Amino acid sequence: MAGSTYGNIFKITTWGESHGKALGVVIDGCPAGISLSIEDIQSFLNRRKPGQSKYTTQRNEADQVDILSGIFEGKTTGTPISLVVYNKDQHSADYSEISQCYRPGHADYTFDKKYGFRDYRGGGRSSGRETIGRVAAGAIASKILKELGISVLSYSKEIAGIAIDNEKFNANEILNNPMYMPDADAAKQAESVAQQKMAEMDSVGGIIECKVFGMPVGIGEPVFEKLDANLSKAVMSIGSVKGVEIGDGFAVAKSSGSTDNDGFEINNGEIIKTSNHAGGILGGMSDGSEIILRAAIKPTPSIAQTQKTVNKSGENIDINIKGRHDPMIVPRAVVVVESMVAITLVDALFTNMSSQMDKIIDFYK
Amino acid sequence: MAGSTYGNIFKITTWGESHGKALGVVIDGCPAGISLSIEDIQSFLNRRKPGQSKYTTQRNEADQVDILSGIFEGKTTGTPISLVVYNKDQHSADYSEISQCYRPGHADYTFDKKYGFRDYRGGGRSSGRETIGRVAAGAIASKILKELGISVLSYSKEIAGIAIDNEKFNANEILNNPMYMPDADAAKQAESVAQQKMAEMDSVGGIIECKVFGMPVGIGEPVFEKLDANLSKAVMSIGSVKGVEIGDGFAVAKSSGSTDNDGFEINNGEIIKTSNHAGGILGGMSDGSEIILRAAIKPTPSIAQTQKTVNKSGENIDINIKGRHDPMIVPRAVVVVESMVAITLVDALFTNMSSQMDKIIDFYK
Amino acid sequence: MAGSTYGNIFKITTWGESHGKALGVVIDGCPAGISLSIEDIQSFLNRRKPGQSKYTTQRNEADQVDILSGIFEGKTTGTPISLVVYNKDQHSADYSEISQCYRPGHADYTFDKKYGFRDYRGGGRSSGRETIGRVAAGAIASKILKELGISVLSYSKEIAGIAIDNEKFNANEILNNPMYMPDADAAKQAESVAQQKMAEMDSVGGIIECKVFGMPVGIGEPVFEKLDANLSKAVMSIGSVKGVEIGDGFAVAKSSGSTDNDGFEINNGEIIKTSNHAGGILGGMSDGSEIILRAAIKPTPSIAQTQKTVNKSGENIDINIKGRHDPMIVPRAVVVVESMVAITLVDALFTNMSSQMDKIIDFYK
Amino acid sequence: MAGSTYGNIFKITTWGESHGKALGVVIDGCPAGISLSIEDIQSFLNRRKPGQSKYTTQRNEADQVDILSGIFEGKTTGTPISLVVYNKDQHSADYSEISQCYRPGHADYTFDKKYGFRDYRGGGRSSGRETIGRVAAGAIASKILKELGISVLSYSKEIAGIAIDNEKFNANEILNNPMYMPDADAAKQAESVAQQKMAEMDSVGGIIECKVFGMPVGIGEPVFEKLDANLSKAVMSIGSVKGVEIGDGFAVAKSSGSTDNDGFEINNGEIIKTSNHAGGILGGMSDGSEIILRAAIKPTPSIAQTQKTVNKSGENIDINIKGRHDPMIVPRAVVVVESMVAITLVDALFTNMSSQMDKIIDFYK
Repeated sequence: MAGSTYGNIFKITTWGESHGKALGVVIDGCPAGISLSIEDIQSFLNRRKPGQSKYTTQRNEADQVDILSGIFEGKTTGTPISLVVYNKDQHSADYSEISQCYRPGHADYTFDKKYGFRDYRGGGRSSGRETIGRVAAGAIASKILKELGISVLSYSKEIAGIAIDNEKFNANEILNNPMYMPDADAAKQAESVAQQKMAEMDSVGGIIECKVFGMPVGIGEPVFEKLDANLSKAVMSIGSVKGVEIGDGFAVAKSSGSTDNDGFEINNGEIIKTSNHAGGILGGMSDGSEIILRAAIKPTPSIAQTQKTVNKSGENIDINIKGRHDPMIVPRAVVVVESMVAITLVDALFTNMSSQMDKIIDFYK
Repeated sequence: MAGSTYGNIFKITTWGESHGKALGVVIDGCPAGISLSIEDIQSFLNRRKPGQSKYTTQRNEADQVDILSGIFEGKTTGTPISLVVYNKDQHSADYSEISQCYRPGHADYTFDKKYGFRDYRGGGRSSGRETIGRVAAGAIASKILKELGISVLSYSKEIAGIAIDNEKFNANEILNNPMYMPDADAAKQAESVAQQKMAEMDSVGGIIECKVFGMPVGIGEPVFEKLDANLSKAVMSIGSVKGVEIGDGFAVAKSSGSTDNDGFEINNGEIIKTSNHAGGILGGMSDGSEIILRAAIKPTPSIAQTQKTVNKSGENIDINIKGRHDPMIVPRAVVVVESMVAITLVDALFTNMSSQMDKIIDFYK
Repeated sequence: MAGSTYGNIFKITTWGESHGKALGVVIDGCPAGISLSIEDIQSFLNRRKPGQSKYTTQRNEADQVDILSGIFEGKTTGTPISLVVYNKDQHSADYSEISQCYRPGHADYTFDKKYGFRDYRGGGRSSGRETIGRVAAGAIASKILKELGISVLSYSKEIAGIAIDNEKFNANEILNNPMYMPDADAAKQAESVAQQKMAEMDSVGGIIECKVFGMPVGIGEPVFEKLDANLSKAVMSIGSVKGVEIGDGFAVAKSSGSTDNDGFEINNGEIIKTSNHAGGILGGMSDGSEIILRAAIKPTPSIAQTQKTVNKSGENIDINIKGRHDPMIVPRAVVVVESMVAITLVDALFTNMSSQMDKIIDFYK
Repeated sequence: MAGSTYGNIFKITTWGESHGKALGVVIDGCPAGISLSIEDIQSFLNRRKPGQSKYTTQRNEADQVDILSGIFEGKTTGTPISLVVYNKDQHSADYSEISQCYRPGHADYTFDKKYGFRDYRGGGRSSGRETIGRVAAGAIASKILKELGISVLSYSKEIAGIAIDNEKFNANEILNNPMYMPDADAAKQAESVAQQKMAEMDSVGGIIECKVFGMPVGIGEPVFEKLDANLSKAVMSIGSVKGVEIGDGFAVAKSSGSTDNDGFEINNGEIIKTSNHAGGILGGMSDGSEIILRAAIKPTPSIAQTQKTVNKSGENIDINIKGRHDPMIVPRAVVVVESMVAITLVDALFTNMSSQMDKIIDFYK
């Protein structure tokens, strides 16, 4: 069942349930010599922290991270970095009644069938809180990318059917609005639609977009470990993601080769692509253009409306889910997508280092 | 760089270039005691074989598979199964001129940058012929699924913008038309549009859909090894796939929780879902409904039109790609998607066997 | 560089330095439904705890374990189990002077060369305290084995040249003497020799033996994942182990086929072996006899005698190692060897479950 | 159950049975740009080929290797290298009678129990011929090491109780005698003892020693992926190896810290060790001294003497093994040990490349 470890060389192992004592992550394979502070990690965690606005749950989850190993005198030592966030405000009582039934859109039923029983407090391991470990590790991966001149930008592209206007795209706006949208007008509209849905005790979905700048050419492996294949797994492994696409994505289905192919040209002595339908990846390897990825996020399954379901005694019942739940997953998932992408890129960069004998000889000179 | 192995317990390793001596696959972790003949594998390979219709390349690639190990007296022995297909009709001369330039939409440029040089004959390792190993292994995975009462159905859902009509869906029709569509009328239309594009020296894309029937509940792991995450990687690792979605996929972005959630009910004493927006997977584990997956396939990048590109000497040039190329990838990729899905399911089923202590005790009694 | 994870299906990830905040382990792939208490784990940790006798260091390391995840209502849930032991009595001052030089027999030099610098406090990651995570995980692995009727017995076979007398072998004696020897007389002798060495500011080595009872036949894989190969890696990965042997081990070099071969016979309708030179493993798979393994443990490298070494400025110097160190590693390593063996067996048992198609079909019925 | 793949970044997958159509190996993760010819591989295979002297089996196994992929214009391309050796002289008839019983010292019984049945022709997958793939891959690993200035030297240290005399050690002698001993006198004596054993229809064991020169400092990971741990697994995974030791190995059990510790000193401005009891590995990482490893090899289990065993019907029987078998495994296993060591070193060297952030930044500049 070992499915809580991700990555080959840069490897993370997450653990923890929403209402257990703590959640955390062990990052193994982090190179030595990187300056790393609690603030580096906390700033990432704060982007997924609830209670930031009226559109996110009002639970007061402090989510303060502690570093237990792997850092010495402010630098990574090359040994595993263990990070922990203690659960504080758990309100277990809110959840006790769901222990006997299966919430629609949740993993209650599949968990029970797989393991024979489940930790029913707040979703247990399949809670959104599981992503705390991913984001903490993502903060470290992002530091590594920064050292290599690579950056990842993520944001909400569409919420409740309201998409950003590319003409108004402003990266600085992303952290200014509770929707994490790079377009203030779209963000306001999306807020308004979301408020209406909340009033109807309903929830909304959306699309997250992620762009990578500065990736060297040739990263990723040409067959099963294609860069786009691993990015897809990374992003699809986030709860509530139902689709992933690279570059033009599903639009290629209606495209033609003459349009979809990106030409090459020499520009100031450098090879560049004249367009980027491929989204920065050719044959599973980065092509020097920006990498573009989108993820479809489903609406929050926990809604206050009465829903039809069954209980463990085999009876059809009505369920009213209590507790405090976000009417949308998208904004808080933005940093989770960014983290999974960063982790995947770091692993690909490290894996790539032994591709050419000449470079290996240089390395060991 | 080791990226030619896929799977954890049921593990496949493919090898071979389009114009090398041979291509093949080693399947390790196949259980002992399965009846397996050359025909079982050949029938899968024939579905991806070119030269079947005027819409596929007229190369006469016999693609006869040979079994070199792992079978004794008609049964799998539990040891690695080595399968080989020798390259026959290679026409290397057709490809020699592309050795000095980078074809748009191909991996020539990224390969050169990653490895310092490349086997330029027909795409080498990034050729579509790389999928021969996947399909041969997929045939074996499908036999295993069949023994467990599980089946996978794949087909072209949309080609060149022509989608099948769900009302006319007929699974028996799939192998009857060169489009591998379960709707004869749509297939005819798609053929007609494709013919027009061929005349224009252009190519078309499409969407492949894959459904899985009979999957037990609880297969897949709840965090990084989610069933949908692994299916996404598996399918996205196929050359020319640019997007993957599960169930309602990208449509969830515009959906509401009240609509998207699938209710449960008791039906003849069994728990079933009353809808299937989730596409058969909840929290990364199979939920007993049919699994539904779609992949977006880009148009064939090799087109006869003149295209702009650069050569290795750093000059802007025009390129005219010769050789025999399919005007669409979709139909031949149907069995590749089916194979990657089957392989992924088998691995998930085997991985799941140690989830409950009681069942392990029973197993070893 | 990720080397802190061990196992394929039953997978452990350890972390922590000797003088950091804490050390711990994440156990992933533990089946659901096993009763597990803090006491189960603590009793294992207590066997490696220092301060138990005058032959072990007098540091007061409480080494109390805490369970942070993976247990619900007293049972494993199938999700990762996170265990932590906080460092209490660290005396960092004792170690500051070794930061500038390389202790003989330690990993100081190799660590500096690999990572550019090191956490020099008490050996950091290469301290014996790293084994805390292994032993905590070993306690869980042992519970799983017990549920399957399998037990592991470990003890000191030889210390400072004093070997146990097989005629006096008494398993109940093992926990009665500070040498962890199954022979009280040998233990007394070994103590006496060790005391003498301590007086000489020197240290001693020895041999640990480990036996496994109740292993089913056929566990382990026939090629690279041979049971003996994985046991060797598991045990050799423990700091200070310099040799591993199975069954007759190095004695086979002087043996003959006619002696070394174990015959088979029918005994009460069961197939048994008439001898066990092979140590319970044939062709990499368990053969139904008891598994026998021995590990050679080097003397504690930290000795109070003046030693020749160099400092980071490139000067030859004399070093006098302070701090409190065991004059022998063997007794405290007994439970570490037992733990690594238990973890390896569990992983092999789980891996084996998909070996036969018929059994898989039965499992999923 | 997948146990035929070895290595993490430099990864080999072997396949094939002694009496199937062929045996082979796929090497994935081999860097691009290495000159590689058939002769490079054949020269390694010839060292394990039978029929070289009267002490090895007289079967005429040509064992000619063919390269099916991964090489273009004489150089490795970075894609998987598929190597195949066809079985020629199989004499299946010789083996048919052993199909119903379990040969002492062989894996017949464990194979049957694990998989339900077995390919009984000549040992099938557990035949010594399984090592063909290892040796072919080892030839490539050795070329990589050579490019990095690293060399591996292997030889028989002891056969039938006759050990080499270190004073007479002559590396050039190794390939001059059928014992592969670096001491002509010892080789003659060993031959004489072996001839006597052959006359008695018996077989003999021995010890293989392997030394590595030129390894950089710091290779190997400090916890589970220790260099010595992986070398132990690599070597113990070779059929008939029953023990592995590094440096002083089992002798450390009787040593003292003051003797066993290797001091450091500055020599011509370089840090060197003043002795090498550790065998070139400290804390799991190479320390710049030569790496020294020994493996204990059991006597050939196939002997012509009548032996006691059982058949599948549950009867006690006498067995007389026919066929042509080596009276000793040691000489032919020398190159197998060397190959497994070389493969392990290459994987460790590649894994090490991402240990320091500064070096990664340099690499990607």
